[in-house]
Amino acid sequence: MLRSVAQVAKSRLSCLFKQVSTPTIGQYQRKMSSSSTVRYLGQEEAQKIDEELFSDYAFSVDQLMELAGYSCAVAIAECYPPETLTKNKGAVLVCCGPGNNGGDGLVCARHLKLFGFTPSIFYPKQPPKQLFQNLTTQCKKMNMAFVESLPEDKAGLTNAYDLIVDALFGFSFKGPPRPQFADILDKLKKVEKDIPICSIDVPSGWDVEKGCEDGLQPELLISLTAPKKCASLFRGKHHILGGRFVPQSLEEKYNLSLPTYPATEPIVRLQ
Amino acid sequence: MLRSVAQVAKSRLSCLFKQVSTPTIGQYQRKMSSSSTVRYLGQEEAQKIDEELFSDYAFSVDQLMELAGYSCAVAIAECYPPETLTKNKGAVLVCCGPGNNGGDGLVCARHLKLFGFTPSIFYPKQPPKQLFQNLTTQCKKMNMAFVESLPEDKAGLTNAYDLIVDALFGFSFKGPPRPQFADILDKLKKVEKDIPICSIDVPSGWDVEKGCEDGLQPELLISLTAPKKCASLFRGKHHILGGRFVPQSLEEKYNLSLPTYPATEPIVRLQ
Repeated sequence: MLRSVAQVAKSRLSCLFKQVSTPTIGQYQRKMSSSSTVRYLGQEEAQKIDEELFSDYAFSVDQLMELAGYSCAVAIAECYPPETLTKNKGAVLVCCGPGNNGGDGLVCARHLKLFGFTPSIFYPKQPPKQLFQNLTTQCKKMNMAFVESLPEDKAGLTNAYDLIVDALFGFSFKGPPRPQFADILDKLKKVEKDIPICSIDVPSGWDVEKGCEDGLQPELLISLTAPKKCASLFRGKHHILGGRFVPQSLEEKYNLSLPTYPATEPIVRLQ
Repeated sequence: MLRSVAQVAKSRLSCLFKQVSTPTIGQYQRKMSSSSTVRYLGQEEAQKIDEELFSDYAFSVDQLMELAGYSCAVAIAECYPPETLTKNKGAVLVCCGPGNNGGDGLVCARHLKLFGFTPSIFYPKQPPKQLFQNLTTQCKKMNMAFVESLPEDKAGLTNAYDLIVDALFGFSFKGPPRPQFADILDKLKKVEKDIPICSIDVPSGWDVEKGCEDGLQPELLISLTAPKKCASLFRGKHHILGGRFVPQSLEEKYNLSLPTYPATEPIVRLQ
């Protein structure tokens, strides 16, 4: 018998969410040295792994961004099944930055749409790169609204959206953000207790290694490839790992100690 | 509590496999006109939809091939969970043709490897196109063996592999196959009752619309985007639809009447 979407999502949640202990600040050094615990990457190391995937392993950005964005959408749909978002009928605001994190966001938005959400996109700085233009076209052709600016008052966001996806900055970010983005982060910060924020790879505005004490506090963090050091400071409800594409040899080279993804799942729960 | 991989796979099978009636030959015309039943595409129409995805919707081949190959790997893993393939420890021979169907096969092989299978690749005619070279590099760097030729005797295949993936020809195929591939198809035909064959999109050697009565008889057929007309003649155990990326407007334009994919699943059972 076909189970309802909610039942499927619930059952997948329970089986997906293998517990992998997350280091607290104090535990960090000890956990880092344990080969059985997932390792949290520094910024330079994350960049090296990324480069190696494209050079040595000959992956294209299109390929890995597709898998990364897809896994983000799966994580979001399983933490917040669309049919449970009744207030604004599954409306999601996907905030995209100018780099690859923003590209992940655009891919994520497309899959969210296929999963039954109603994503709108806020993409304040659209770079001329062909890939980003194509991802934008795909979203537009799939009837997603592009919003030009964030509303000035909090209610403008809380009355319109059930979720916010933060795809502004990723593991290449070096602060502080420029004024335009600092303003966006301020606005998101004001609603973080009212609308769950789902950050892709790194909560935007956070230092990739040291985090940001008074920064954005997402409820869901989806680490991609491997968590970055700042993720040890994440205090939200759900920490999920996505981007199931890391070759074993690369995992071993960098001693990533990734958790085992269940069966064919594109995500695994870290916390 | 974390369920075992086998339990997860089993439970996903039961929830995924929504029954969608498949037209038999006699029913074909009637079923085709019913808007509630998935439509089986002619060759020209399949080509048009494919072109439109790349032109109007601005998808790259890399993107859609990644999603298509991933969904094939998920379908295979859920019909034949790797831990149940004890005879040859989950060894899979992925036979790739020179076109995009072969590319889907290479992507599928990569994900199969991540799911715990041991894929080897037979890629007798490797085109110089950069994308295919990159997909090949990815598989080689992930320690997959590339076999140079198929063994002459049946036992050479049955003693080595638990499954065969047929990614030789897809929806662009116009027969008859050239001698090199006719020979390969003959060899696969001889083992089809001993090793399950999983065909990607179209059983190779089949006319895309009219099938091939004495051709290859796969046990699993994974239709991509939408099933092709020949799929109505498929008599194997599992008919699965993958390639969950079709925008609603395209689905409506071509009146595809695709079945509803459950939750975040990349596949749905057709039969």
